[in-house]
Amino acid sequence: MQTTFIDNLIYFTDLLGTIAFAFSGVLVAGRLRMDVIGVLVLAAVTAIGGGTIRDLLIGATPVFWIKDSHYLLIIALTAIVGMGVARVYTKMPWYILPILDAIGLAIFIVIGAQKALSYGTNGVIAVIMGCITGVAGGVIRDVLASEIPMVLRKEVYVTAGILSGSIYVFLLDFGTGHIAAMFVSMLSLLLVRIPAIFLHLSLPAFNLNKDEHQ
Amino acid sequence: MQTTFIDNLIYFTDLLGTIAFAFSGVLVAGRLRMDVIGVLVLAAVTAIGGGTIRDLLIGATPVFWIKDSHYLLIIALTAIVGMGVARVYTKMPWYILPILDAIGLAIFIVIGAQKALSYGTNGVIAVIMGCITGVAGGVIRDVLASEIPMVLRKEVYVTAGILSGSIYVFLLDFGTGHIAAMFVSMLSLLLVRIPAIFLHLSLPAFNLNKDEHQ
Amino acid sequence: MQTTFIDNLIYFTDLLGTIAFAFSGVLVAGRLRMDVIGVLVLAAVTAIGGGTIRDLLIGATPVFWIKDSHYLLIIALTAIVGMGVARVYTKMPWYILPILDAIGLAIFIVIGAQKALSYGTNGVIAVIMGCITGVAGGVIRDVLASEIPMVLRKEVYVTAGILSGSIYVFLLDFGTGHIAAMFVSMLSLLLVRIPAIFLHLSLPAFNLNKDEHQ
Repeated sequence: MQTTFIDNLIYFTDLLGTIAFAFSGVLVAGRLRMDVIGVLVLAAVTAIGGGTIRDLLIGATPVFWIKDSHYLLIIALTAIVGMGVARVYTKMPWYILPILDAIGLAIFIVIGAQKALSYGTNGVIAVIMGCITGVAGGVIRDVLASEIPMVLRKEVYVTAGILSGSIYVFLLDFGTGHIAAMFVSMLSLLLVRIPAIFLHLSLPAFNLNKDEHQ
Repeated sequence: MQTTFIDNLIYFTDLLGTIAFAFSGVLVAGRLRMDVIGVLVLAAVTAIGGGTIRDLLIGATPVFWIKDSHYLLIIALTAIVGMGVARVYTKMPWYILPILDAIGLAIFIVIGAQKALSYGTNGVIAVIMGCITGVAGGVIRDVLASEIPMVLRKEVYVTAGILSGSIYVFLLDFGTGHIAAMFVSMLSLLLVRIPAIFLHLSLPAFNLNKDEHQ
Repeated sequence: MQTTFIDNLIYFTDLLGTIAFAFSGVLVAGRLRMDVIGVLVLAAVTAIGGGTIRDLLIGATPVFWIKDSHYLLIIALTAIVGMGVARVYTKMPWYILPILDAIGLAIFIVIGAQKALSYGTNGVIAVIMGCITGVAGGVIRDVLASEIPMVLRKEVYVTAGILSGSIYVFLLDFGTGHIAAMFVSMLSLLLVRIPAIFLHLSLPAFNLNKDEHQ
């Protein structure tokens, strides 16, 4: 049936986002010289942190990765393969990490908004839940690495998330099919984020430090 | 009816605390040179972080700001207006931030204790939930800003919270009316905190570093 | 009855782990020169942080220390007594803190795995919940102290946790009695951790920084 196909597509997309984020966690763990377990933990936290916070906030407990062990399995595989890949391709270009992040973000925003809607939230909350699903994993990763989370300072990151989440919710509301809404939303995020990554675009900063030039 | 009036008063007070904390988040975001979205996120985290943790711990999910969108709306308005105000009044005195904090704290302790009691906790847990509601938002804000949370080191902060939360719970227990108990509790917090802010009062530190003079 | 005896033994062991972790929090608080309330907060966060996250993830709300006030009472007593002890024995050897940690870890892994199983999770999730129960309190403590959590970098810490959690779950699965499974699991953790503490054993680091010698 159509529904089953859509469900499978969403599930497959979700796992793809999990892989992208887990691999980004592996790359950060490598910079911090963590051991194998540290790599696994950072990969997992990055990949499922956002969805976990979403599930806690909307009251969907036990959280998704307790109900479905495939997520943890895929994260473990990604971490193992990822460590090998990162060792072999030591000259990995700098833009791999932000692009993995953008792919994960594009996917998780849609997945997160969808789950929130299925729990009966309104559209604004669904967009916020999408952004939390997409962004929070990276924030926890940065906090564990004792850094100010990049997303709070960097190139149109959350802005792009709000935009693509809103596009998704609006399209669904206008009666667009699930697959089309997902596709357009994810495309819009990549179209904003990828140029921003290469051109280092930022929103103007709100700066109260008078002693600095902006 | 009387109940409705009290409920409205509590709700209005809660929104006032939300504004105070959101504005304190705006001021910190300004120091960290965040973009507009960063300001919104920090304002929101400061204003609803504590209540969110309280709701998760007592099992009140979905959390309050998912059920009632007014909180997010008010935070967004405060962030927008707050950025304007902070730009115009660039010579804002240093004590604005701690006083906003004290007002938010006074309100949220009462609100948090009240919600815990309405979920059937005992008085000790209600005081702790009040303190978490009042304090945790600021802690998350400081962790995101990669600082040791001020509340763990500063002038009689949590102490004042425990005191005013206990006063509230005791007064209710002795049969005092809701409004009187709220008013006395909030007043007691401000009477402790505001002198502490201006006089830089601290509890004696517990110091295990032998190489420092205390 | 036998069941009651086992339940009591588990409860008593749990409280013992709470004391060990609370005291480790007191020692860290002393290094950070916190006031009395800061010490209480850090003791509490270290001792109940892991179990709280476990309860949130599996949907066991209100969390355990809201349902049973003995935990907070014991933490408060430990903090008060611990501050006195730490002041008197100022020449406390460096290994006291990691050994307290190892004892708390050994106990909380078993307790956490057990609770997860009683909520119907599979064995893999039970091991993970055991590790979260044992490790997360220390992670929050380190984040509050603005440090990269030691467990992500140090001597076979989480590895030992996964090992002892797995032993516990496997033994139960093979029909071993509760007490024997608990005892063997806790012993295995101490047998791995305590030599690791004194010999500074680490897993090989995964290091992507090419400019450093490993």
